[in-house]
Amino acid sequence: MEDRTNENINENSSKIEGRNAVIEAFRSGKTIDKLYILDGSKDGPMQTIRREAKKHDTIVNFVSKERLDQISETGKHQGVIAVAAAYDYSEIDDIFALAEKKGEAPFIFVLDGIEDPHNLGAIIRTANQAGAHGVIIPKRHAVGLTGTVARASAGALNYTPVVKVTNIAQTIKELKDRGVWFVCADMDGTVMYDLDLKGAIGMVIGNEGEGVSRLVKENCDFIASIPMKGDIDSLNASVAAGILAYEIVRQRLV
Amino acid sequence: MEDRTNENINENSSKIEGRNAVIEAFRSGKTIDKLYILDGSKDGPMQTIRREAKKHDTIVNFVSKERLDQISETGKHQGVIAVAAAYDYSEIDDIFALAEKKGEAPFIFVLDGIEDPHNLGAIIRTANQAGAHGVIIPKRHAVGLTGTVARASAGALNYTPVVKVTNIAQTIKELKDRGVWFVCADMDGTVMYDLDLKGAIGMVIGNEGEGVSRLVKENCDFIASIPMKGDIDSLNASVAAGILAYEIVRQRLV
Repeated sequence: MEDRTNENINENSSKIEGRNAVIEAFRSGKTIDKLYILDGSKDGPMQTIRREAKKHDTIVNFVSKERLDQISETGKHQGVIAVAAAYDYSEIDDIFALAEKKGEAPFIFVLDGIEDPHNLGAIIRTANQAGAHGVIIPKRHAVGLTGTVARASAGALNYTPVVKVTNIAQTIKELKDRGVWFVCADMDGTVMYDLDLKGAIGMVIGNEGEGVSRLVKENCDFIASIPMKGDIDSLNASVAAGILAYEIVRQRLV
Repeated sequence: MEDRTNENINENSSKIEGRNAVIEAFRSGKTIDKLYILDGSKDGPMQTIRREAKKHDTIVNFVSKERLDQISETGKHQGVIAVAAAYDYSEIDDIFALAEKKGEAPFIFVLDGIEDPHNLGAIIRTANQAGAHGVIIPKRHAVGLTGTVARASAGALNYTPVVKVTNIAQTIKELKDRGVWFVCADMDGTVMYDLDLKGAIGMVIGNEGEGVSRLVKENCDFIASIPMKGDIDSLNASVAAGILAYEIVRQRLV
């Protein structure tokens, strides 16, 4: 699957360009969301960068000089551009700690490949308002915490932990071992009003076009459907997330 | 209040430029969302255009030559540019007809000044999926049916009637006379789960920044609040519309 989330490399100023700057960013502990490296480039500093990327499990894209020129803001990329996160990511344990602090059963949003930064921002905003304790997003094929996402979150990014994981299906398995039940939003499930969504719960929302991926869906305990009475295919992903999240809120209030 | 919805004059190709073209558009019955006229321009053809605009209750903006040059795509505006709707508007009676055809109590979305075309598109999409029979938007201080709105609606604009009215508060009064109850989303209301939202209903959603205007709110029968457990002010407008709409859907299913 091609990485289609090009938006997040062009709409904020968190690009780090040039070999030394990129090496320095890795070593200072900065979160690098993505790395663009000139295809075929294998000299010493570039090997160092690739080692650092591997160590931090950073997504690396090998691209043409033309592509790099296009992404570059300074015009001095020296064959490498890193895209840094506009906000810091949290850890899974931060989510559990927040739930514990509030004395509530964990309520977690899991986003299986949201690509539109406005959607991601709106969903983080909803997570905050619905009283969720955190949001989990994947490293690949998804938008990260860019400036646009931060703006669309209307400040929620300052309060709601966002965790980036390598493998959503694997993370779901681990969280199930910690007592969290998972419900994914999909069209072929049970009408959400008929499900019991109380207790420790993870709500899984799929990609804008393709929905929840097969492997992730197989790992969920329930499939919840939002009643669709219309003539078209689906709802906007951030709207769907809001509707299912507030059905969970409603059930938790009872 | 200044008209802040400039977006819809720059993101689609539905501009009509030049005196004859604009007069022709009016006479052919095309829906003109907005008209930009060179300030101080008062010759014969321009008088004709202003008469047509008045007849059709079209919003007229008197602007400088620089502004017109900026809006212009052809560079040949001759002092006048019309912005045509990308889609046709419906009438209030189309909404009632659709409800009657489906044998359902009318369910109407009323948008009191949505400015973001992505929000408007997402809300029309939600209206379609929630089984609402139409969407009412105001002529002023709101985005109309632009190309961006059509795209964001994911096809819903082809099915769900959208009506443009001069005065939302006045329209609400008229619809109340036809048996529709109105609920507006606002923070200082009753928790939505505790309201009876069955029967013929109009759901009012306010502007992204300012919420529902005072006069509109005063004309509503109920004020519904979405429970907010977060640290920030509000939800995204299209997400809030989705959440309240589906509480109405849930109550209608019972």
